[in-house]
Amino acid sequence: MKIARFTHHDDIAYGVLDGEELVVLRSDPLFAGFETTGRRVRLDDVRLLSPVIPRSKVVGIGKNYADHAAEMNSQVPSEPLMFFIPNTAVIGPDDPIVLPPWDDVIHHEAELAVVISRPCKDVPVQRAHEVIFGYTVANDVSARTAQRSDTTWARAKGFDTSCPLGPVLVIPESAEEFDPAHADVRCLVDGEVRQEANTSDMIFSIPELISYVTSVCSLLPGDVILTGTPAGVGEIRHGERVACEVAGIGELTNPVIRR
Amino acid sequence: MKIARFTHHDDIAYGVLDGEELVVLRSDPLFAGFETTGRRVRLDDVRLLSPVIPRSKVVGIGKNYADHAAEMNSQVPSEPLMFFIPNTAVIGPDDPIVLPPWDDVIHHEAELAVVISRPCKDVPVQRAHEVIFGYTVANDVSARTAQRSDTTWARAKGFDTSCPLGPVLVIPESAEEFDPAHADVRCLVDGEVRQEANTSDMIFSIPELISYVTSVCSLLPGDVILTGTPAGVGEIRHGERVACEVAGIGELTNPVIRR
Repeated sequence: MKIARFTHHDDIAYGVLDGEELVVLRSDPLFAGFETTGRRVRLDDVRLLSPVIPRSKVVGIGKNYADHAAEMNSQVPSEPLMFFIPNTAVIGPDDPIVLPPWDDVIHHEAELAVVISRPCKDVPVQRAHEVIFGYTVANDVSARTAQRSDTTWARAKGFDTSCPLGPVLVIPESAEEFDPAHADVRCLVDGEVRQEANTSDMIFSIPELISYVTSVCSLLPGDVILTGTPAGVGEIRHGERVACEVAGIGELTNPVIRR
Repeated sequence: MKIARFTHHDDIAYGVLDGEELVVLRSDPLFAGFETTGRRVRLDDVRLLSPVIPRSKVVGIGKNYADHAAEMNSQVPSEPLMFFIPNTAVIGPDDPIVLPPWDDVIHHEAELAVVISRPCKDVPVQRAHEVIFGYTVANDVSARTAQRSDTTWARAKGFDTSCPLGPVLVIPESAEEFDPAHADVRCLVDGEVRQEANTSDMIFSIPELISYVTSVCSLLPGDVILTGTPAGVGEIRHGERVACEVAGIGELTNPVIRR
């Protein structure tokens, strides 16, 4: 099942994707389930939004693919490396990534994102699946000069528009529909493939990440974990279009502008 | 004016402090102003809560007092060093700080905290006062082993219970009532003074911090900026009580436990 959040005329609504249409849901499925209104709208007639706005946080994970750690001249960490991205950084499909004026080197990072379903803390690896609501695609846009100068990565990863999410949320009913442990991830800039990998190359699995993150902090419904990016990160520049894809979810495309 | 957020019987409410009583407000003053219900409750009959729960984030600032940077063997930064603390880390007065099992060295950090009044981005220094709702006291509790191993500080500063705020919010009508640029800050552990400084020793002033943070990311009503801690940080241990004070606001006291 694929869920979209969208605006249609002046309303924000949620819907279940059915071909080229959306079946409108009564309310936010995170809190109110999947009851539909019966009304249908055409995908072409809506503007897709980020499928979720975290109530609390996006948790990023650094260096979770060995080939990316190598290209950043970093060691593979012995534990997941967490960082926080505020909800003010989240944008949706087709929203512009606005390059910050204080950094000249901004990189794309295509990632699989996990959306949390319920308040949770200290989740064991074997029970991590119980707190997953669904999956979407993220671009963990990163200001590299600031990332080197500020070791905390807050500025580098937390500026407004640095966290595109979308285009939809996948809630898989079977591994055939979507298997987060074996999903192709790609990033294209103006149609040229820059990153191409499979989530099976992650160092820490999604259940391991959920268990680790919740050993530190509570996660709330709608919180998001970004699972790390593979090799191939590179610059995005004014006027380009960057597309992050996870096979089985869709393509998250954003124009890049510098004001 | 001092504002408290509190529970009384099963309700959460806001009130204006008047001696030993609270005059109850109609709603959250951040969004609904200061109209009172006329009802009064005794301070002794309520449980104080964190005066605010950020909708988006707490922004921490590292090394904003030269003597603290020196005791951490750090340089004074040429720009403010930002980090993010999620709202899940916030607790109120008298709530226990629960020491995380994955770190042996947990430190107190007494700080003046600034609460933001309105959505804002790119605020000039001269207009920073327009986006300040009020001031409270924070303890930026820090897990030092994790802070050294994870340069992002997310785990070190973002674990549950790591961000006590309170006891009240001060909304000063004059610099005589409260002057955030010249306020005494102290931290006491079991009554022994550990930190003692004045906010006039900050490297970056509150207007400079607001301007810098909003050059990176939007702030939302209820977001909090922690302005940094002075020298004297040190360990807190199971069974101790840690009190952070800012003169003119009050004393934020929390017991420390290890489960």
